[in-house]
Amino acid sequence: MTYCAALMLESGIVFGSDSRTNAGVDDIATFRKMKVFERSGDRVMVVLSSGNLSVTQAALTLFEKRSHAGDGRETLWSATSLFDVANILGETLREVQLKEGPYLAQDNIDYSASFLMGGQIQGEEPRLFHIYSQGNFIEATRETPYFQIGETKYGKPILDRVITPRISLKDAAKCLLVSFDSTMRSNISVGLPIDLLCYERESFTTRHQWHIEENDVYFNTLRKEWSEGLKQVFGSLADLPSREP
Amino acid sequence: MTYCAALMLESGIVFGSDSRTNAGVDDIATFRKMKVFERSGDRVMVVLSSGNLSVTQAALTLFEKRSHAGDGRETLWSATSLFDVANILGETLREVQLKEGPYLAQDNIDYSASFLMGGQIQGEEPRLFHIYSQGNFIEATRETPYFQIGETKYGKPILDRVITPRISLKDAAKCLLVSFDSTMRSNISVGLPIDLLCYERESFTTRHQWHIEENDVYFNTLRKEWSEGLKQVFGSLADLPSREP
Repeated sequence: MTYCAALMLESGIVFGSDSRTNAGVDDIATFRKMKVFERSGDRVMVVLSSGNLSVTQAALTLFEKRSHAGDGRETLWSATSLFDVANILGETLREVQLKEGPYLAQDNIDYSASFLMGGQIQGEEPRLFHIYSQGNFIEATRETPYFQIGETKYGKPILDRVITPRISLKDAAKCLLVSFDSTMRSNISVGLPIDLLCYERESFTTRHQWHIEENDVYFNTLRKEWSEGLKQVFGSLADLPSREP
Repeated sequence: MTYCAALMLESGIVFGSDSRTNAGVDDIATFRKMKVFERSGDRVMVVLSSGNLSVTQAALTLFEKRSHAGDGRETLWSATSLFDVANILGETLREVQLKEGPYLAQDNIDYSASFLMGGQIQGEEPRLFHIYSQGNFIEATRETPYFQIGETKYGKPILDRVITPRISLKDAAKCLLVSFDSTMRSNISVGLPIDLLCYERESFTTRHQWHIEENDVYFNTLRKEWSEGLKQVFGSLADLPSREP
């Protein structure tokens, strides 16, 4: 499985992805699920992937390859709007599924896949899209400032409690790490390393990136402090009133 | 949807269930999903239900009706072990699904259903079972001291952090309420009222019961304190170290 999330804030976008891939419990591997496309000063696009790895890899490879083809088609480098980039990625996903799907379907292999894609192109505001397995997509708004894909439920409560469009990039990044911690504790199919990227609005660079591995001192401290803090809050809650009929 | 959970502790068992039932977003209703069977001093059995409501209701009705039939068959009142009661309930569920299933299946209606059933019969330790939709079941152990059914993921992280067999009934009950709070915040298909029951080992009574509705002062305070406590812990976490390559 996978856990990826992206948070759309007034100050920018925070992206996070785990690295665990499993095709059955005896076939677990590590793959980076965050891909960054950057032309400094002009555009930054970050793609997070979930679902069938052969499908997401093929779609992203095509997506990138065609951007160098120079055959006149619009690409991620020539598009003037992130909406158009989302459209290209969705179309590429459909193409791969059309080609690969029948072979996978005949062995009942799930070939669904989805992406979160966000960033900023000069002349536009930062934008964030959720591209579904069918190639259609939706965009984040103020009312729904974050998207998740993969194993999303364990890590959702903390995002629901903390994330608003006004929160700072730093706080959002911390919150996302807590969300990963909750997910990893409850589900072994999500695992380290975590890739984390904070895109600062109008910066057109991706310099705020973290690659968090097992021995990451900051993340381990965060996990410990969060866990101990929770237990402390829990211990301070009042007992249920006795109610014996 | 539904959220039910039961926690098996050294000191007893804590049961909790929500009351929301939905057949599509325009058909939401309130049904109690906790059923208590008690013969004071002799046995206590608590059943929590999830899944197709017509199936769980029919199975539980049959389960109870037969216990008064006096046809010589073993029933929930005559069984000398909770394992046998789990078996009866599983068989009853299979029977209902066999009868109703084909009619529901032809309209693609999901008729799966599952139960958590626990309690104590004189002469035995307290026991807790998870009865699957296929009628088979598993029993809680020290290593896996709790079971959930329904919309389980949102509320799992806090259980994973807090619940051990040694925790007190009161703390476990509080933790379960926090787990319900997290679930209800992230998923509208789970809702109040909550039924909560703490069975104290060797008590053979069910006197510790709470029915928590919208205006419940204790629960509302707990939610507020938990939420504020979390935010405080969150606020105290150290910021990510800056890492600009």
